[in-house]
Amino acid sequence: MVAVDSLGERGIINLLRQRLELMPNMAVPFGDDVSAVSIDNSDDGGEVAVLKVDMLVAKTDVPAKMCLYDAARKAIVMCVSDFASKGVQPVAALVALGLPNCLATVESVVEIVDGLNAAAREYGAYIVGGDTGETGDLTISVSLYGKAFKSVLMLRDGAKAGDVLAVTGVFGKSSAGLRLLLDDSYVASSRARLVLENAVFRPVARLVEGLALSKSGCVSASMDSSDGLAWSLHELMRMSNVGFTLDLVPVAVETVEFAQQNGLNAESLALYGGEEYELVLTVPPEKWDAAKKAVEEVGGKLIAIGRATEHREIVLLQAGGRKQVINHCGYEHFTS
Amino acid sequence: MVAVDSLGERGIINLLRQRLELMPNMAVPFGDDVSAVSIDNSDDGGEVAVLKVDMLVAKTDVPAKMCLYDAARKAIVMCVSDFASKGVQPVAALVALGLPNCLATVESVVEIVDGLNAAAREYGAYIVGGDTGETGDLTISVSLYGKAFKSVLMLRDGAKAGDVLAVTGVFGKSSAGLRLLLDDSYVASSRARLVLENAVFRPVARLVEGLALSKSGCVSASMDSSDGLAWSLHELMRMSNVGFTLDLVPVAVETVEFAQQNGLNAESLALYGGEEYELVLTVPPEKWDAAKKAVEEVGGKLIAIGRATEHREIVLLQAGGRKQVINHCGYEHFTS
Repeated sequence: MVAVDSLGERGIINLLRQRLELMPNMAVPFGDDVSAVSIDNSDDGGEVAVLKVDMLVAKTDVPAKMCLYDAARKAIVMCVSDFASKGVQPVAALVALGLPNCLATVESVVEIVDGLNAAAREYGAYIVGGDTGETGDLTISVSLYGKAFKSVLMLRDGAKAGDVLAVTGVFGKSSAGLRLLLDDSYVASSRARLVLENAVFRPVARLVEGLALSKSGCVSASMDSSDGLAWSLHELMRMSNVGFTLDLVPVAVETVEFAQQNGLNAESLALYGGEEYELVLTVPPEKWDAAKKAVEEVGGKLIAIGRATEHREIVLLQAGGRKQVINHCGYEHFTS
Repeated sequence: MVAVDSLGERGIINLLRQRLELMPNMAVPFGDDVSAVSIDNSDDGGEVAVLKVDMLVAKTDVPAKMCLYDAARKAIVMCVSDFASKGVQPVAALVALGLPNCLATVESVVEIVDGLNAAAREYGAYIVGGDTGETGDLTISVSLYGKAFKSVLMLRDGAKAGDVLAVTGVFGKSSAGLRLLLDDSYVASSRARLVLENAVFRPVARLVEGLALSKSGCVSASMDSSDGLAWSLHELMRMSNVGFTLDLVPVAVETVEFAQQNGLNAESLALYGGEEYELVLTVPPEKWDAAKKAVEEVGGKLIAIGRATEHREIVLLQAGGRKQVINHCGYEHFTS
């Protein structure tokens, strides 16, 4: 028997994809950030119900020092981030809450419910239902529902060679923050520690940015970066059949400082971190100014980091014109 | 600190309800079998997205002798049953699959995926997405999406005194079957054992019956019986502000035989079993014939078992005119 350990989380998802009878005429390809079902039964261009489930498991997704309120909030943020990457407003959330006995107190449940509610409201959604059961470890599965015109969905498969590659923020804070939280041998200035740990405790989904980008009509492909920047780039490459040349890796200054102090590579922390919720997207060059303006008008940032290319490889241009290949690697459950 | 044990599963759900900011103008009251969100933003009578999540946890919901295929199938059936009770066709399902290491084999995952897929297709839905994570115990959270006109939803709160109380099948098979599966000291004929254990392994959601009833427009209130017949009656009483007088408890013949052989009370097995997925509903007397015909035309049964009354109590009329009060009691997680 082949163990899932050797399959990895995506191996399991691939197995699902292979063995499931797929819905005909799905508005979004299986494996994109969200699923979508036609509301009005029109073949094209009509409205779709947008659906997504994301599962948070304490053992793998919640560091010991993270409070229950923040863990519950994160479960919502993870799922909202997928909606953000498609440019869809989440409307309603359902929560399946698996509670272990050690959290079986009113105090704990109140903290979890308050975190869920606050996060849903933070992104304009309401929790409309749920279920609960007794589990060995805290698990919070969040399902989101929203509605959108199919034509405004920013899918993973539309990037063209020549498009500008962009992100909505800098990377590497969560991976540095996680190291600080899990291993006392890492050091950081108190200011950097605050920023880096806060990135783990209070991640932000780029919903206003995603909605603005979708509305602008400037985006050719988009996904979120919850599995790491490198992973997202490889996914966009695979789905859009393009490559990418990066002029820079967008690293947070606190991560640069952390890397220097701890003898680590800052770019690796930014590329292979995961648990970050920036959007990674492409914009045709003639639409770049409009896209940037749209994001800045809602208080966000759009950082150009490279270009889509015809060759299916992902390379980082370094000083002196050297090229470094960026490998397909990111955080994945069942393989650690 | 108050332990959840003393709260019970419904105590947790009540806590959720109290602390959540509720969506304004919800088409279905919080706490009904499903949630619903307006699709067309009309205040009344328009189309709604119908949503539901149900969580199966192996420890509490899957007897040791149940295979993974059947466990996965049951996770879908549990959720479809809620749609059935409202008269809504499920369209799409999302699955959050928590896998323990002991099931981390391709063989196991394939069995689970095949069970999920077969069950979804059995009820006309497709699995359109999912997520997976590593958990201590197998957990399968199923979220369903469907679409309906608000006016056809069969809610819990419409029963009126004088309405006929009816069910779509007989009860007590699952509770007898579970006893046989969990405790070798129980005895049964081989034929009864097959029927009773099969009720546990292969529960059926009454979707065709629910859809036919909804279409008939004959039903004043409805819910499913997943927490036991007595529980459902008390819920309908609470939500509709009526009572019920039962002329009979609809017990399966195999359960009667099992009870006799094992010195148990057959009616208690039927009333307080749970894990059964019949519909419990009320029909105004002048619509009874049409309701019964609608269900029989799709191959189902509708069994009248009593009447709704003005007095908020649930009593069973016994031989000699004696009345037995049916208590509020059913299967509940966290209290066993």
